[in-house]
Amino acid sequence: MSPEATAGETHVAEDSDTDGDSNAPPDPEADTEESTDQPESEAQSVDLASDAGGFACEATVGTLEAYFGQFVPILDEMTVHLEPTGLEGRGVDPANVAMVDEGLDESAFAHYSSTGGLIGVDLNRLMDILSIGDAGDSVRMELDQETRKLEISIDTLEYTLALIDPDSIRAEPEIPDLELPAKVTLEGSDLKRAVTAAEMVSDHIRLQVDQTEAGEDALIFSAEGDTDDVTLELPREDLIDLEMGDGDSLFSLDYLADFEAVIPETAAVDLKLGSEMPVFIEFEHIENVDDGDDGAPHAEVLQMLAPRISSED
Amino acid sequence: MSPEATAGETHVAEDSDTDGDSNAPPDPEADTEESTDQPESEAQSVDLASDAGGFACEATVGTLEAYFGQFVPILDEMTVHLEPTGLEGRGVDPANVAMVDEGLDESAFAHYSSTGGLIGVDLNRLMDILSIGDAGDSVRMELDQETRKLEISIDTLEYTLALIDPDSIRAEPEIPDLELPAKVTLEGSDLKRAVTAAEMVSDHIRLQVDQTEAGEDALIFSAEGDTDDVTLELPREDLIDLEMGDGDSLFSLDYLADFEAVIPETAAVDLKLGSEMPVFIEFEHIENVDDGDDGAPHAEVLQMLAPRISSED
Amino acid sequence: MSPEATAGETHVAEDSDTDGDSNAPPDPEADTEESTDQPESEAQSVDLASDAGGFACEATVGTLEAYFGQFVPILDEMTVHLEPTGLEGRGVDPANVAMVDEGLDESAFAHYSSTGGLIGVDLNRLMDILSIGDAGDSVRMELDQETRKLEISIDTLEYTLALIDPDSIRAEPEIPDLELPAKVTLEGSDLKRAVTAAEMVSDHIRLQVDQTEAGEDALIFSAEGDTDDVTLELPREDLIDLEMGDGDSLFSLDYLADFEAVIPETAAVDLKLGSEMPVFIEFEHIENVDDGDDGAPHAEVLQMLAPRISSED
Repeated sequence: MSPEATAGETHVAEDSDTDGDSNAPPDPEADTEESTDQPESEAQSVDLASDAGGFACEATVGTLEAYFGQFVPILDEMTVHLEPTGLEGRGVDPANVAMVDEGLDESAFAHYSSTGGLIGVDLNRLMDILSIGDAGDSVRMELDQETRKLEISIDTLEYTLALIDPDSIRAEPEIPDLELPAKVTLEGSDLKRAVTAAEMVSDHIRLQVDQTEAGEDALIFSAEGDTDDVTLELPREDLIDLEMGDGDSLFSLDYLADFEAVIPETAAVDLKLGSEMPVFIEFEHIENVDDGDDGAPHAEVLQMLAPRISSED
Repeated sequence: MSPEATAGETHVAEDSDTDGDSNAPPDPEADTEESTDQPESEAQSVDLASDAGGFACEATVGTLEAYFGQFVPILDEMTVHLEPTGLEGRGVDPANVAMVDEGLDESAFAHYSSTGGLIGVDLNRLMDILSIGDAGDSVRMELDQETRKLEISIDTLEYTLALIDPDSIRAEPEIPDLELPAKVTLEGSDLKRAVTAAEMVSDHIRLQVDQTEAGEDALIFSAEGDTDDVTLELPREDLIDLEMGDGDSLFSLDYLADFEAVIPETAAVDLKLGSEMPVFIEFEHIENVDDGDDGAPHAEVLQMLAPRISSED
Repeated sequence: MSPEATAGETHVAEDSDTDGDSNAPPDPEADTEESTDQPESEAQSVDLASDAGGFACEATVGTLEAYFGQFVPILDEMTVHLEPTGLEGRGVDPANVAMVDEGLDESAFAHYSSTGGLIGVDLNRLMDILSIGDAGDSVRMELDQETRKLEISIDTLEYTLALIDPDSIRAEPEIPDLELPAKVTLEGSDLKRAVTAAEMVSDHIRLQVDQTEAGEDALIFSAEGDTDDVTLELPREDLIDLEMGDGDSLFSLDYLADFEAVIPETAAVDLKLGSEMPVFIEFEHIENVDDGDDGAPHAEVLQMLAPRISSED
C-alpha cells in the first residue's frame, strides 16, 4: 500500500474479514474467491509451459472487445485464467483502490476448448489487435505451447502475440467478503448522468441510500464544490429496485468515471453500498442475440471501488 | 481604452454621438439603450439581495443554449437582467472591440415569472451545466434569495450555481447611436463562406457596398494577403435585400469568425455598414416550432464590431 | 543523396538503367519519361510568362481534390504541367525514397483548354482553397499571364493564388525503367489492412510473392517486431490477379502508410515487385459517373517506393 494512497483512501480489501488488507501488494498466495483451486503463482507460470497449451477459441471481435475492454480502465497488463468453462480475469489498479472481476462463459464463443492454464497479456496491445477487425468479424486464438505465444487470426491476417510471464504481473486481488446492507438497481444511463454532473464541481461524489426531503426512499448522488453543488435524487419510482439499508460513502470521481465509461447505458446496474465501505457495482453484458442462442448475457462484471475517507472525519 | 487596442482598432463606441467613447472601461453610469430605467451599477447589485429573488423559469435546454451561446465568443462572465418580460443580456469583449446584445422573450419559456433584478453568471459554467441535458430536455431555474444562488434542475438532477456579484463584472456597454447608410440582408451561410475564405490569406476582411466591375450593385467581401487575395461578390440577385449607401470598412477576422460561428446558416442576417464605421450584424433565432406557438423567433441578436483602421491610412 | 538516407535506404532511381541515381538532387536537365519534349527547367519557367498563359479549366471540387490529394503525402510544393491534353504531375519526397506520378485527362473537366506550360503551386494552400467548396461544386481556374497568378473561382468566390517559380521547386524525378518480375492485383482495402496491422509491431513491412506453407501461390505481407509478428497471406483466390515471379523486398511503413491513405478502398491496385527492388503501386481513380461520360477513370496514379535494405544484409 503506497503512502500516498493511505493518506485519504481506504483500500478495496480494507474492510474485509480476511487478512488480505495487510498485504501490500496483495499476497499472491491468498486464494481468490472464485478460483480457490488455483495453485500459487509460481506454480501457475509453470502451467503455461505444460498443460496450458491446450487452448483454442473463436469468437467475434465485438465479444472479445467487450470482455477485455472492462479491464482497460485499471490495468495495462492482466492475467487471464483459461478455465475449461471460459475465461476468468481479475485485477486491481496500482493504488489498490479499484478492482474488476469478470468471467466470459464458453457459451459466448463459436468454439472454445481449454485444458486450463494461466497467461499474461499486454491489454492495450490486445485491444489494438482486435481493432483491426470489425465487430462482427471472427477471431481465432490459439496458444502455442512451445513458443509461449498466442496466435491470433482475423480472417487471413495472423498476429503472433508474445505473452507476459504471469509472475511479473501485479498479483490478482481477493474479493473482500463484505456485508453491504443497501442494494440499488438502476439504469446505466442514470449513473452516467450523476457522474458527468458531479465532475463539474468536485473530484468526489457521495452515494447515499436515504430519504429525500419529501420523505421518499431514494438513491442520492451528491457532490460539493467550492461554490457549486450537484444533487441527483432517484426515488424508488425512478429505480429498477431498491433495498433500503445503511449506505453513505464518498468515492473518487476519477475512478468512478472510468468505471462508468465501460458500463452499457442500457444495462441494469446493481450497486451495493455500506457506510464508509467500498461500493460493489455489478452488471451483465455481451448478449449475442444474432448467434442463435437465447440472448442471455455471457459475461458478469464486478467493479469494486474503495471509499474515500470524508475530509471532515 | 487600452493602449494596445488604440494602436489599430477603433472602438465600438467611437463614432457614436454620445460621450461613451471617452470612457474606458465604459462608464457604468451611462444608461444603456434598451434598459434606460436601470439604476446605476451599485444599486443594481443591491437588487440581487432584495427583489431579484422573485425569479423562476422553465425552458428547453436547446433554447437556453442558443440564447446564452451568443455571448460565449466575447464573454466569460455576464450580467443578465431578469426583466418581467424576459431575459436581457449585453456585453463587450475586454478589448472593447466586439459587443453583443440579445433579449429572450418570455414567450420562449414554458414558464416565466420575474419581479426584476440583475444577476451575474459564469457563462462557461452555465453552458457546461446545460450540456448535461439533451436539447429537448426541460430546464427549471429558480433564484434563491437568501443564498444568492441559482437552483438549476434538469429532470431529477439539481445543480446549485453560485452567482457572481454583478459589480465585479465588466460593465455593460452602451449601444452607440450611429448613422449607418448601407444595409444588406444575406444568408448566414454566405457570410460563413466569406469569412472562411478570407481567413486563408489575411487577419482582416473588407466589407463594401459598391458596384462590381460589371456595374452591378453588390456586397463585396475582400481580403488581401502577402501574395494571395480573396474576393466574394454578392450581387443584388444573390442577396435577400440591399439598400445602397456609403459602406466600406475593414474588420478583424478573429472577431468576425467568432460571431459567424454562432449565426445559424439559414438565418437572414442584416448587415448595417458605413465608411470606417462599426458594422451592426442583426438576426433573429430560437423558433420553437414544436411547442405549439406560431414559430416566430423568440430572440433578437445584435452583434457590433468596431472597424480596424486601414493600415494605409 | 543525403548521407542519412544512404544508411539504410536505396533510392527510387537506384536500380535504374539510367544515370539518374548519381544525381543528388535529381538533375533538372534529365528528361522525364512522359514529357520528353519538355525544355529544360530554366526554359520552362520562361514558358510561364509566354505561352503558359493560355490556360483555363473547369471541374468539380471533388475531382481536383482527388487529383492533387495524391501528391500531398510527399510534397508541399509541386510543379504542374499544363499539357494540351490534361494535367501532368510528378514529384519525389525530400529523402528521394517515394515518388508519385499522376495525369488527369482533359475528359475529367467540364472545360479544359491549354496551350501548354509549367506552373508551381503551394499544394497545401491549393487543397485549403478547394475545401471551401463542396465536392460537387464547380471550380474554374484561369492563368493570368501578366501577374503569373492563378484565378480560382468557386461560385461567386474568387481566390487569386500566387504561383511559385518552378525553378525553386525540387526537380521532378525520372521514373526508373525497371524489370519487376512479380505482378499482383489486389483490392485497396487488403493493402490497408496489411499496413495497419504491420504498424503495430514494426517500422517496416516485407512484401513477398511466394508459396504459403500449404503450397499455394500467394502475396505475403509480413512484419517482425521485437516480440510480436504479423503476417497477412493472400492466396490467389483472394487476389484479383497474380503473376508469380521473384519478388521479396522490405519497405518503410511510414511511406507505405502515407501512400495507402490516398488509395481508394475499392480500387484494384497493381503491385509490381522484385527482390530488393522498388515497388510500383498503380491504380486508376476519378470516375465521374454522374457527368454523362462512360464512367471510365480519368486519372492514373503511379506510386513508387524504394526498398529498405534488410538489416541482416
